[in-house]
Amino acid sequence: MQVKTEDFWIFLAYKDPLFCVIIFFMINKDEFYMQKALELARLGAGHTSPNPMVGCVIVKNNRIISDGWHKKAGMPHAEAEALAKAGKKAKGAVLYVNLEPCCHTNKRTPPCTTAIINSGIKKVVAAMVDPNPGVNSGGFGVLESAGIKTVRGVLEKEARYLNRFFVKNMEKRLPYIIMKAAISLDGKMALSDGTSQWITGPEARESGQILRLECDAIAAGIGTILKDNPYLDCRMDKTRKIKKIIFDRQGRILPAANIFKNSAPGDIYIFTSAMPEAKMRKFVRSGVNIINRWKNLSSAAGMLYGYGINSVLVEGGGVLHTSFLREKLYDEARLYVAPVFIGSEGLPVAGRLGLKKLADAVNIKNHDIIRVGEDMLIKGEISYVQRHSL
Amino acid sequence: MQVKTEDFWIFLAYKDPLFCVIIFFMINKDEFYMQKALELARLGAGHTSPNPMVGCVIVKNNRIISDGWHKKAGMPHAEAEALAKAGKKAKGAVLYVNLEPCCHTNKRTPPCTTAIINSGIKKVVAAMVDPNPGVNSGGFGVLESAGIKTVRGVLEKEARYLNRFFVKNMEKRLPYIIMKAAISLDGKMALSDGTSQWITGPEARESGQILRLECDAIAAGIGTILKDNPYLDCRMDKTRKIKKIIFDRQGRILPAANIFKNSAPGDIYIFTSAMPEAKMRKFVRSGVNIINRWKNLSSAAGMLYGYGINSVLVEGGGVLHTSFLREKLYDEARLYVAPVFIGSEGLPVAGRLGLKKLADAVNIKNHDIIRVGEDMLIKGEISYVQRHSL
Repeated sequence: MQVKTEDFWIFLAYKDPLFCVIIFFMINKDEFYMQKALELARLGAGHTSPNPMVGCVIVKNNRIISDGWHKKAGMPHAEAEALAKAGKKAKGAVLYVNLEPCCHTNKRTPPCTTAIINSGIKKVVAAMVDPNPGVNSGGFGVLESAGIKTVRGVLEKEARYLNRFFVKNMEKRLPYIIMKAAISLDGKMALSDGTSQWITGPEARESGQILRLECDAIAAGIGTILKDNPYLDCRMDKTRKIKKIIFDRQGRILPAANIFKNSAPGDIYIFTSAMPEAKMRKFVRSGVNIINRWKNLSSAAGMLYGYGINSVLVEGGGVLHTSFLREKLYDEARLYVAPVFIGSEGLPVAGRLGLKKLADAVNIKNHDIIRVGEDMLIKGEISYVQRHSL
Repeated sequence: MQVKTEDFWIFLAYKDPLFCVIIFFMINKDEFYMQKALELARLGAGHTSPNPMVGCVIVKNNRIISDGWHKKAGMPHAEAEALAKAGKKAKGAVLYVNLEPCCHTNKRTPPCTTAIINSGIKKVVAAMVDPNPGVNSGGFGVLESAGIKTVRGVLEKEARYLNRFFVKNMEKRLPYIIMKAAISLDGKMALSDGTSQWITGPEARESGQILRLECDAIAAGIGTILKDNPYLDCRMDKTRKIKKIIFDRQGRILPAANIFKNSAPGDIYIFTSAMPEAKMRKFVRSGVNIINRWKNLSSAAGMLYGYGINSVLVEGGGVLHTSFLREKLYDEARLYVAPVFIGSEGLPVAGRLGLKKLADAVNIKNHDIIRVGEDMLIKGEISYVQRHSL
């Protein structure tokens, strides 16, 4: 039996009222309310793109009197929702939000700073500055000029992690790109004949589906499409429209491929450079996005951002992963490693990387190692600079 | 903070005496005392070979009145030690031991069954039958004929795991063989130029040393010896004499290699088939064991068992690991996986395995996944039969 810390504290508080007082003083109140705001923000996961996930709680006399979160791009911001719910009670209260309130007007919803000032809120606690160049501390400035106290940086690390897609989008004008692969202990994705069903177990395959709910698009190489003929849709939520990106230099894709079956043609992007003109024209006419002028994956990533794709889940195969790794485009890795050996005839997850010394190896940092069924999941940031432990 | 279950129970018992009673009835007493015997047995780890690790407690009126463990081959058995300590108090007591007491006389110490019968012990609880063909339930038979009650199978799984080297030795007349390797996420042990220092971090390297304290011998291929010139000794305990096995078909080993430096020549075993005669003669004269007639690793394993080597830690390189995997000789794996990609130019941990279908992949089962610093350790049994989850 594993006892969770929470249970333990509740038990203590129940056994002895003195503990209640100790716990009260142990908890940092700003962090406590910010945690609530982050939990609310997370409810929007997979639906807010291109906007960030934002949650908000309004606190008065140590009680949460109202809350809200951003549900979908075009719908009210978290602060607006929470303030509307609070009404006149917001006067003199403290507002907790995981992202600096917006102050820009070039968008569908009115700026939150105006609503906050009008509500009579006396203090705003935010987890992080909005990296959007149109805000970028401007929101704090507007609030302070109106006499509202501001506190920044509460649970900043957690907040930046939650909105890492958005932060990358704003800071680099590029989509956030995740490498996902199921590999053997010796780094193979499939047998030499391409057989890859299934290296990992059912739990790992299920876990891998969750990411499809959170990213704007899935990408795959033409090799994978021809070999596995996957649907690349969200098995967990068939109503979710995920965009599909195929890298297919030779234009070998077939119009009957399964990826076309559950998608509007406009949600499909094919990067090619040698597709026969007639085939290309047919695809274009049916509404599929054909990108014919692209140099490398870096330029493709920029184009995808231009198309409004803010996060991409790259599911392979090994040839595509190798190119992404070589061009240093991956932000994050989700690797499911099965406890099996396939041998050197198998198809590798990483081809030639041109490494000169071990210290230069592409590495994963700030990672978690999680057991998923019989397999293990390594999830963390991909880093292209020297590892600290070397 | 993580609260351990034990702390939680102690806390409960402290807060409320009723819990003491509940706990008393929750604990299986046989398992409780057997756990103690196993803990004592484990104290002999690395010193008892070729004997098993055995621990013993003697219990009377719910109290442990004596205990003992087997410290080293040639020294008293655990039961003998505990009985000698208990003296006359052993009369009417219960003896707990993690292995069936021995009844055979063809060895340095007298049979434990005789000592138990003479002591007046009324009941013997053992975790497992002794797989030694000279015992193999015979010990229980002798005890029962003398009117002593016997109970078998208490914590049997734990006991068999603790003495897995011994069980393999007795059942297969072969050494227990462990694969140890430090690899990248894509299954490489080194760069193409052989650079392998260091793929894993300091914590993993330290952890890998512990195994050297528990095995009779370390094995390596000549490639590793020529490239890294390792000492292959026990950094953690320089006094420990570990045997060293080198697989060197061409006889390329140099008499000045570091592996000769901290070892008696008799502790070194070189398997060769094309070593120049003069070189061979020189080695033999200095006392090194040269094995010139061997067919494959299976025959080599049999020979090593003949030499009294009961457990072997194979530390690589990839060529040797591949041969052991192909010949299905590994019993256990300890793989340290670093979160880095080296690319397909690197030297693989597993070469061609000739796999026909994924279900046939060599796999690791009953495994633990443990984070060690930035790296992860997968430790478990190596299985050559189809995985259940496929």
